[in-house]
Amino acid sequence: MHATVLSIGDELLSGDCVDTNAAWLCSRLSVVGITVDAVHQLPDDRRAVAAALREGAGRGALVVSTGGLGPTPDDLTREAMADAFDDGMLAVDESAGEWIRQRLESMGLRMSEAQITMARRPVGATCLPNDAGTAPVLCRQVQGCTIWCLPGPPAEMRSTFDAHVAGTLPAGASIASREVRCSGIVEADAASRLGELLDRQCAVQVGTRVSRGIFIATVHDSGPAGDEVLEEIRRRLDPWAFGCEGEQPADDVARLLVARGQTLATAESCTGGGIGSSLVDVPGSSAWFLGGVVAYSNPLKHAWLSVPMSRFEPGGPGAVSGEVARDMAIGIREATGSDWGLSVTGLAGPDGGTDAKPVGTVWFGIASGDSTATRQFRFSGDRAVVRRRSVSTSMQCLRMQLRDVTQRLAWECVE
Amino acid sequence: MHATVLSIGDELLSGDCVDTNAAWLCSRLSVVGITVDAVHQLPDDRRAVAAALREGAGRGALVVSTGGLGPTPDDLTREAMADAFDDGMLAVDESAGEWIRQRLESMGLRMSEAQITMARRPVGATCLPNDAGTAPVLCRQVQGCTIWCLPGPPAEMRSTFDAHVAGTLPAGASIASREVRCSGIVEADAASRLGELLDRQCAVQVGTRVSRGIFIATVHDSGPAGDEVLEEIRRRLDPWAFGCEGEQPADDVARLLVARGQTLATAESCTGGGIGSSLVDVPGSSAWFLGGVVAYSNPLKHAWLSVPMSRFEPGGPGAVSGEVARDMAIGIREATGSDWGLSVTGLAGPDGGTDAKPVGTVWFGIASGDSTATRQFRFSGDRAVVRRRSVSTSMQCLRMQLRDVTQRLAWECVE
Repeated sequence: MHATVLSIGDELLSGDCVDTNAAWLCSRLSVVGITVDAVHQLPDDRRAVAAALREGAGRGALVVSTGGLGPTPDDLTREAMADAFDDGMLAVDESAGEWIRQRLESMGLRMSEAQITMARRPVGATCLPNDAGTAPVLCRQVQGCTIWCLPGPPAEMRSTFDAHVAGTLPAGASIASREVRCSGIVEADAASRLGELLDRQCAVQVGTRVSRGIFIATVHDSGPAGDEVLEEIRRRLDPWAFGCEGEQPADDVARLLVARGQTLATAESCTGGGIGSSLVDVPGSSAWFLGGVVAYSNPLKHAWLSVPMSRFEPGGPGAVSGEVARDMAIGIREATGSDWGLSVTGLAGPDGGTDAKPVGTVWFGIASGDSTATRQFRFSGDRAVVRRRSVSTSMQCLRMQLRDVTQRLAWECVE
Repeated sequence: MHATVLSIGDELLSGDCVDTNAAWLCSRLSVVGITVDAVHQLPDDRRAVAAALREGAGRGALVVSTGGLGPTPDDLTREAMADAFDDGMLAVDESAGEWIRQRLESMGLRMSEAQITMARRPVGATCLPNDAGTAPVLCRQVQGCTIWCLPGPPAEMRSTFDAHVAGTLPAGASIASREVRCSGIVEADAASRLGELLDRQCAVQVGTRVSRGIFIATVHDSGPAGDEVLEEIRRRLDPWAFGCEGEQPADDVARLLVARGQTLATAESCTGGGIGSSLVDVPGSSAWFLGGVVAYSNPLKHAWLSVPMSRFEPGGPGAVSGEVARDMAIGIREATGSDWGLSVTGLAGPDGGTDAKPVGTVWFGIASGDSTATRQFRFSGDRAVVRRRSVSTSMQCLRMQLRDVTQRLAWECVE
C-alpha cells in the first residue's frame, strides 16, 4: 500500500516551523507496512492544496493531510477538498457543530462565528470528532483512495490519527526501523565498533544517525535476521546502549530502579530542573522518584543540601567542583531519605567561564548507601546544548553506577 | 522570485528523521524575499527526483535540493539531475575529483572507489566544493531557473548554502515573519480579536498558528506597514501576548522581574522541574531565579514547604488542591527568602484521576509579600501535554500577577 502525506501551512514554507507531523505520520504508516511515496509541504493556498489532494488520490490508496482545519480565514483545507472532489460544495455538519459546541461548553466557552465554520465539510466527506481540540477531522473516499485531513497541532494530529485512522489501516508487515540508542559515545567511535555491519552490501541494512547527542543505529528488517543484527549491535554498543525506539536514558534508569525497588532524588544547579523533568517524563515515576531541589544559589545549596558555605569562599573549590557535587548528592539523599542521590553543578554559559573552569564544565555526583562518586565533563556547544547534554549524561552516569559498570564517557575529563 | 525546495532521502519517508533542512532553507530564502511555493520530501528514487527537478524548474526561478549526493549506492541525485536535463549523461569532473582526493588526504584517508563516484556530474552542470564534507555541490541553469543540489547532512547543507548559494540570490525585501506570541488564549478567541486583520485580502498578510499551546500571529511585511499591524496585533492580544519571535512566557517573566529587581523561587510537583528548567533557559536567570524544589512526594511537601500533613489525610483537600498550592507557594517563598513564590500541583496522568479531580486538573499558587493567589485549570491531552501546558500557563499566571492584570485564561476553571 502506498501513501502521500501533505503538510499544510504557510508557517512551514516561511521556515517558521519545522514539520514534525510528517515524520511522525511516516513512522506510524511504515510500522504497518505502508510506503510513503512523497511528503509535500504546501502553503495555505486553496488551489495548491486541491491539486495536491487530487494528485495524491490518483497515485495511491491513502492520502493523509495535516493542517488548515482551524477556525481562521487562512485555514482552507476544507475548501480545497471540496474544490478537488465536490465542485467546491460545502455542507454544514449538524452533529459536528453540536459536538464542537459541547466541547467548548465543557471548557466554559461559547461557540464563536469563526468556530461554526469548522463544522462545514465537503458534501462528499465525513466529519469525525477531535478529542484533543475543536477542529473536526475530515474523511473522504475517492475511488480506490481514502483521504484523511487531520488538524495541524501535533497533539491533535496524533490523537485523531490514533482515534480514527490507525484502526482502518491494513495490518501489513512493518517496514519501520528498529533502533539501538546510545549516549556518551562519539559517532566515529560507535561506527568503528559497528564495523562491517554498516557495509551497504549486507543483507540487513544498518543506518546510523546522531540526534541531539544521542547516537542511533537503525535496522529496517523486522524479521529474525533483523533481530540477530539488532542483538549484535546492542552487544557491540554495550554499555552505552540504553534503549530502543524513541527512548531516553531516563527510561533505562527507571527500569533499573524499579527492578531494585529503590528510590532516587536529585539536586540540580545548571540544569535548573531538567533532570527532574526528564525523570517525570517516564510514566509511573512517582514509584521511584521522590523529588529534588534546584539549588541555583549558593545559600540554597547550603540550606537544603548542607553544602558548607566555606566551599564558596575565596580559596575554596567553588560551586562548580567535585567537592560541591559530592556534598549535593549526599545532601539530597539525606534530606529525602532516598536510596540514590544524583547531583549536577556546572557552567552552562554564556558567561561565567574562566581558563581553569571554562563554560561547559559540569560535575555530577552520585551517592548511594555504599559510596559517592563524582565525574567531571566538558561539553561544547551553547547554553541549551550544554544543559541538554548534562541531563542526558547525568542519566548515563547514574545508569552505569546502577549497573556497576566502569566506562569513561565521551567529553569526560581525565582526573 | 519563487522557489521549490526538495528534501531527498529514504530516511525522511520512513519517518526516522525529521526534515530540519527544509525549514532552515525556507527561512533563509524568505529573509531575502524569495517565496517558497512547495517543499517536497522524496525518496532516493531516480525517477521521482528527476520528475521533481523538472517540475520545479518549470515553475520558478530557483530549485534547491538537499541529499542524495553521497558516495553510497542509494545516493542518486546526480543521476536524477542528468536524467532530467542531460539525457542521463554524466561526466567525470577532474577538478572535483582532485579536490575530493586532497580533502581526504588532509584527513589521512585515501579516496575509495565509492568516493570517486562523487566527482561525476551531469554534463550540463557545474561542481562546487564542500568545505564541511566530501560531496561536491551541483549547480545547473535550466532556461530561467537555477538549480542547486546541496548535500543532506545539515552542517554541510548550511555551509555550502552560505558559501555558494547565498551570494547569488537577489537582495529582495525580507518576507520573513515577525511574531506576536500568546499563551492562555484559545485559537478561536485570539482569531476573533484579530478580526479583519486576518482577511486574506489585507495588504499586510497576517497568519496564525498554534505551537505547543502557544498561539502565534505572524506578519510577513518587514516595512512600516508591517510595524503598524504588529503593534495593532499586540494591542488586541493584550494581556495574553508575552513576546516576539521564538520567545517563551519565561522571557517576559524575566524582563518583569529584572525591571522590579525582584526574585523568584518555585515549588513544583507534577511538572517535575520543567518550570525551573524553562526559567533557567533564559540567559542571566541567576540574577532573579533563586531555585526551587520538586516536591513530588507528600512528605517532601511537608518537610521543604511546611505543607501540613493533615492536608493529605482522609477528609483533607489532598495534594492536588488550592490549599496545597497556596501552602507550597508561601512555603517556597519563606524557605528561600524570594520576593515571589510560584507553585504547581496537579494530575498529569495517565493514572490517579477521579471524577472530582480528573487527570489534567492542575492548581497554581502565586505568593508575594502582599498576597497569595491560587488558580485552577483543567488541561486536556496526555501526560506530556498536560505538563507542558502547566509550565507555560504557570508562567502566564505569574506574568499577569506581576503586571497586576486580572484575566481569566483558557482552560481555567470557574470557582
